[in-house]
Amino acid sequence: MGLEHVLDAASVAVVGASKKETKRGYQAIKTLIEEKFEGQVYPVNPKEESILGLRCYAKVSDIEDPVEMVLITTPATTIPEILEDCGKKGVAGAVIIAGGFGELGKEGKKLEDRIVDIARKNSIRIIGPNTSGMMNLKRNLNLVGLKDVPKGRIALICQSGNMALALITEASIKSQQGFSYYVGIGNEADLKFHEYLEFFQEDPGTTAILMYVEGMRDGRRFLQQAYQTTRKKPIVMLKSGRSATGKLSAGSHTGALAGISEVATTAFKRAGIIVIENSDELFPAAETLASLPHIGNNRIAILADGGGHATIAADNLTDLGVNIPPLDEKTQKRLHRILPPGASVRNPVDIAGGADENPAVFADCAEILLHDAHIGGLLIVGLFGGYNIRFAESLAFVEEDAAHRMGKLVRNAHKPIIMHSLYNYAKPHSLDLLRYYDIPVYDSLEVACRCIASLSQYGHYLHSYHAKEKFTFSKGRKSRRRGREIFRKAREENRDALFEHEAKQLISLHGAPVSENYLVHSQKEAAAAAARFDGAVALKIVSHDILHKTDAGGVKLNLKTSDQVRKGYSEIMKNALAYDPDANIRGVLVEAMMGQGLEVIIGTKIDDQFGPVIMFGIGGIMVELLNDVVFRVLPISERSARRMIEEIRSVELLNGFRGKPPVDKRAIKELLLAVSEIVGSYDDIQEIDLNPVIVYEQGLSIADARIILKKDMKISNW
Amino acid sequence: MGLEHVLDAASVAVVGASKKETKRGYQAIKTLIEEKFEGQVYPVNPKEESILGLRCYAKVSDIEDPVEMVLITTPATTIPEILEDCGKKGVAGAVIIAGGFGELGKEGKKLEDRIVDIARKNSIRIIGPNTSGMMNLKRNLNLVGLKDVPKGRIALICQSGNMALALITEASIKSQQGFSYYVGIGNEADLKFHEYLEFFQEDPGTTAILMYVEGMRDGRRFLQQAYQTTRKKPIVMLKSGRSATGKLSAGSHTGALAGISEVATTAFKRAGIIVIENSDELFPAAETLASLPHIGNNRIAILADGGGHATIAADNLTDLGVNIPPLDEKTQKRLHRILPPGASVRNPVDIAGGADENPAVFADCAEILLHDAHIGGLLIVGLFGGYNIRFAESLAFVEEDAAHRMGKLVRNAHKPIIMHSLYNYAKPHSLDLLRYYDIPVYDSLEVACRCIASLSQYGHYLHSYHAKEKFTFSKGRKSRRRGREIFRKAREENRDALFEHEAKQLISLHGAPVSENYLVHSQKEAAAAAARFDGAVALKIVSHDILHKTDAGGVKLNLKTSDQVRKGYSEIMKNALAYDPDANIRGVLVEAMMGQGLEVIIGTKIDDQFGPVIMFGIGGIMVELLNDVVFRVLPISERSARRMIEEIRSVELLNGFRGKPPVDKRAIKELLLAVSEIVGSYDDIQEIDLNPVIVYEQGLSIADARIILKKDMKISNW
Repeated sequence: MGLEHVLDAASVAVVGASKKETKRGYQAIKTLIEEKFEGQVYPVNPKEESILGLRCYAKVSDIEDPVEMVLITTPATTIPEILEDCGKKGVAGAVIIAGGFGELGKEGKKLEDRIVDIARKNSIRIIGPNTSGMMNLKRNLNLVGLKDVPKGRIALICQSGNMALALITEASIKSQQGFSYYVGIGNEADLKFHEYLEFFQEDPGTTAILMYVEGMRDGRRFLQQAYQTTRKKPIVMLKSGRSATGKLSAGSHTGALAGISEVATTAFKRAGIIVIENSDELFPAAETLASLPHIGNNRIAILADGGGHATIAADNLTDLGVNIPPLDEKTQKRLHRILPPGASVRNPVDIAGGADENPAVFADCAEILLHDAHIGGLLIVGLFGGYNIRFAESLAFVEEDAAHRMGKLVRNAHKPIIMHSLYNYAKPHSLDLLRYYDIPVYDSLEVACRCIASLSQYGHYLHSYHAKEKFTFSKGRKSRRRGREIFRKAREENRDALFEHEAKQLISLHGAPVSENYLVHSQKEAAAAAARFDGAVALKIVSHDILHKTDAGGVKLNLKTSDQVRKGYSEIMKNALAYDPDANIRGVLVEAMMGQGLEVIIGTKIDDQFGPVIMFGIGGIMVELLNDVVFRVLPISERSARRMIEEIRSVELLNGFRGKPPVDKRAIKELLLAVSEIVGSYDDIQEIDLNPVIVYEQGLSIADARIILKKDMKISNW
Repeated sequence: MGLEHVLDAASVAVVGASKKETKRGYQAIKTLIEEKFEGQVYPVNPKEESILGLRCYAKVSDIEDPVEMVLITTPATTIPEILEDCGKKGVAGAVIIAGGFGELGKEGKKLEDRIVDIARKNSIRIIGPNTSGMMNLKRNLNLVGLKDVPKGRIALICQSGNMALALITEASIKSQQGFSYYVGIGNEADLKFHEYLEFFQEDPGTTAILMYVEGMRDGRRFLQQAYQTTRKKPIVMLKSGRSATGKLSAGSHTGALAGISEVATTAFKRAGIIVIENSDELFPAAETLASLPHIGNNRIAILADGGGHATIAADNLTDLGVNIPPLDEKTQKRLHRILPPGASVRNPVDIAGGADENPAVFADCAEILLHDAHIGGLLIVGLFGGYNIRFAESLAFVEEDAAHRMGKLVRNAHKPIIMHSLYNYAKPHSLDLLRYYDIPVYDSLEVACRCIASLSQYGHYLHSYHAKEKFTFSKGRKSRRRGREIFRKAREENRDALFEHEAKQLISLHGAPVSENYLVHSQKEAAAAAARFDGAVALKIVSHDILHKTDAGGVKLNLKTSDQVRKGYSEIMKNALAYDPDANIRGVLVEAMMGQGLEVIIGTKIDDQFGPVIMFGIGGIMVELLNDVVFRVLPISERSARRMIEEIRSVELLNGFRGKPPVDKRAIKELLLAVSEIVGSYDDIQEIDLNPVIVYEQGLSIADARIILKKDMKISNW
């Protein structure tokens, strides 16, 4: 895409350059000079000759040498003209600081659309507008004006200037790790989340991507990119704007689509993103993932000196889904040999005062624990780093030596250690040594737990990736022509939905089992169709003027004899015409009566930010009363379909509840996949509603099927 | 109770006093001297003449002057003899540091019981054993040997030495607030949580109580005390040991009963305790509650400079149940007048750069917001304290002046401000000034949110207290004699349960509606009894040898004619004897058939730590599949009973679901209260199981009732 010329630009013009110290156009140039940007800087201001010793230009197109990037610090209304001028010069990218665009409503949005148009025409990529700027820390390309930002391997994409400031501050004062890039996403008018992701994925200097998100313009593209990116690098994200007030707050300052829908968190996690809830844990999780090897087996040991912290850590890790397995006998014996008799060696390991006179015992235990093949990582909690403060100053050297040993251990064993220490505040040298070896140190127990859990979650994701993502799109490929025919017909007739039998035909085309059905147009045809079934039949009116068939008397159930069928047919016709004399009636559908089974529902809709999503739930009381449903962004893989079924709270109903036989989960899975495939195969579908679907011990029947068409066909499909 | 002589002791003997610097018996005396304990210190060690310039005694009883408190630092096995000697001297209390008691298993428990016996006989109260000690910071009575503990108004009760160290460290380095007392609860062998609570409740120097709990020996007494205490002072608590691993971890180091049962959190909250989940929030919440006025109306304003933080804060506070109402028009207008045009004045208030050149605008906004009668408190998030760092040094003075104004505002308006600042690390003077005015400052947004939410929760609790706690015990008072008769008979017959008709009779005695029923002993009696009912009847065998009546053919339903009843009776008798030829059969119960209604279940059991608890759930699939039940510690008030019913996830089933009429919630409430009263009225009940109870539009029927008797009647009742 060529974002190299934007994010790795070799030359920058600052439009709105100024001699006034409080102006952004002054600070930007000063920072570029002071931070030693490895490229050319061109101040642009028609009123000045030179600024900070650099020659000043009247406009960008006046600059003789090539200009890759432009930082524009002037107000919103000046932007179009400036961009046009940048176009003449062949500029690759522009950071637009000014607010006054989409976030202010309709008028602002117009201006925003205009500058995007100009940029597109001139092949300029825009960061922002309404952004704090961007930084490339490797080249000292600092377009934010914030000094002393620590360098490191984390790329930061942030939707709030304050959050960026908070994260950068945290890195400065607490961490050894820092940033490779920073991007203030701003209004996301042109460059979007997924494009930055794609770039950072390939950047060799970036080992983790950190994101603060309030809302996204194209969640679907982002997810698609995230699936690719997380296979190479971890992404850590906090998304805010969950609550109604939070959404309003987010909307008022970023102009992003209000909040993120209910499907977001599941979708993010499914794409391998580490989703963080507590902002205190955001930078630490990124720091850990950027610095340490991940954990493949989700099995962690806790090492403590005394209880309390160990108990809280065990609680937290359990909540986070991490396994704290009892240690095997051999490891327990080895620990027993070096620990006092009161020590607990099960896991958590409590050295019970065994370090009071010799904190090296932490390194001894760490070696034993990380050499246990069943243990994937180690969390140490409590007092390490403070034994010299609490007991005897001379212990400082012992602690430092232990830190060296643990650092080397992590490097050689390729397994992580995370350290919690309540003496972190005192900045003992031993803890700095740990940081030198990329072992993060936290004074918060919860943060330390979240960090090691992140290593475990990411490792687990990578481990299961291949099993996870087999999308099957084969079955219906040949049938698409016939499927398109169904939609074409409906469009021709100006209908906003398919008929039930059409919907069922479509589903059948895509390989899911659909019960036999016949569209009939007379008593005689009805009786003939009914004769093809073994048992009783049901009749249903087919008319797009009659939506609520039962209310209109358009449904007859459990008809057993030919006479009943004939009578049923004529009654339906009579009722339908009484209900709506002008109704366009296409006939009557004849189907077998459904057997007793479990009702489930399957549906799809189009989410504002993530596009098509699929829903599955157990029907009846469960969905009405408890809203016991599961969502996924489409398409879904076979594994996703299986997991959706298992994630239902009342899944026991499927497994043979109260002596009933289990129902056919495989058939549900096939139907979910067929629906996924259908939504992906046609541009026309706004909504699918299969409700109810009756699932039996073997197979299932779709009792009612509605497929609603998109009104505005301009909406592009994924 | 006389805990004054223990916790406020005027004289201390240190048994195990030592000249060796690493020994606790040295450190304790040194600390008492250095921290200037306002009383007498007596070293006790038969081998020394004097220690640190103080005369040393061979044993406690050798000391001529009175000794109120003894700190014992010698090993477990020496304790009995020392305690006996202390008894001679008339000592009021002893801190026993040594481990090696109940936490080590059976043998240890024996020794623990022995020292408790000795202590009781000699009227000595024991803190511990297996404790880090205690401190009275007002008198500098420091029996922990930890120096420079900050003084203040928080009493700390802690079940982990490490957690105590962490909390004290946190107070030292981050807070203006400190401690009035510290107690390491240890094994809780003698003095228990509730006794400390009672003492701190009356202490004028304590304004909040902070607790870290892993398990309790007498949760019931603690709850009773907590109800009293929280009306006067806030209690903040973190309880760990939720997870299986956490429970094991807790058990191995405190010897407390494994973890705390599922009822704990609800019970604690119901008693007005602020329950904290994240250990980072524990001290801050206590600090806030100890220092600031609580919020009565649960309505908070958020003040920010830029988004991000405001959005996250709004999310968090919403999750915590705090209201962030839109500001009224007048307040919005007043804010508009002083803020830039881009500012948002709805709530959260975003001053949108309006403080960059004048941070005094924070104080201006705070004044407007706290003078709004609808707003109970203010959370400020973001950069305050750092405008001098971020923009211009000269702003430091402006920030300091703003801090003064906000401090005075809190005092005059009697409403709290909590400050989040990402510049807290830089320790700007303005933030110290806020602390001087008891306004806490946090660098964690989540912590700041939890703190203001705590003020709101506590205020809300106090507000609703009176409505909450009306226990009704009147109805059955007169019937207790007759009730006791029922239990006496069952005991005489060596039964472990009441018969169904007895259980129903008991419930009826306590004012809950029970359907008519007759115990019959012949076909003739059965037919006569059946004749008293309008419709069909049910017959059930009554025999404590036949538990599963239906399996034994001991139940006949829907008998309509006299013949059917006679035949039913004889079949039941035949089946019963076939099932168990030796069965002791008391007859057959005749009842009306139950009508169609909603099945609910009500039960009670005895929890290890909290004694009798009551459970309510909707029967059938809801309870089996989703475990949709609610627990309360007994007794329950009318309000609690009402809330139990409303807390069921599937409560909609009670409110007239799917066109059905609503059921009689009042009748359920009455039954819950009757059950509460029954459990409280008799010593005999181990378990009650009313399952199912059929609830109608009007009234209810108890279809089956089991009351199981306690095996071990030594267990005392509440």
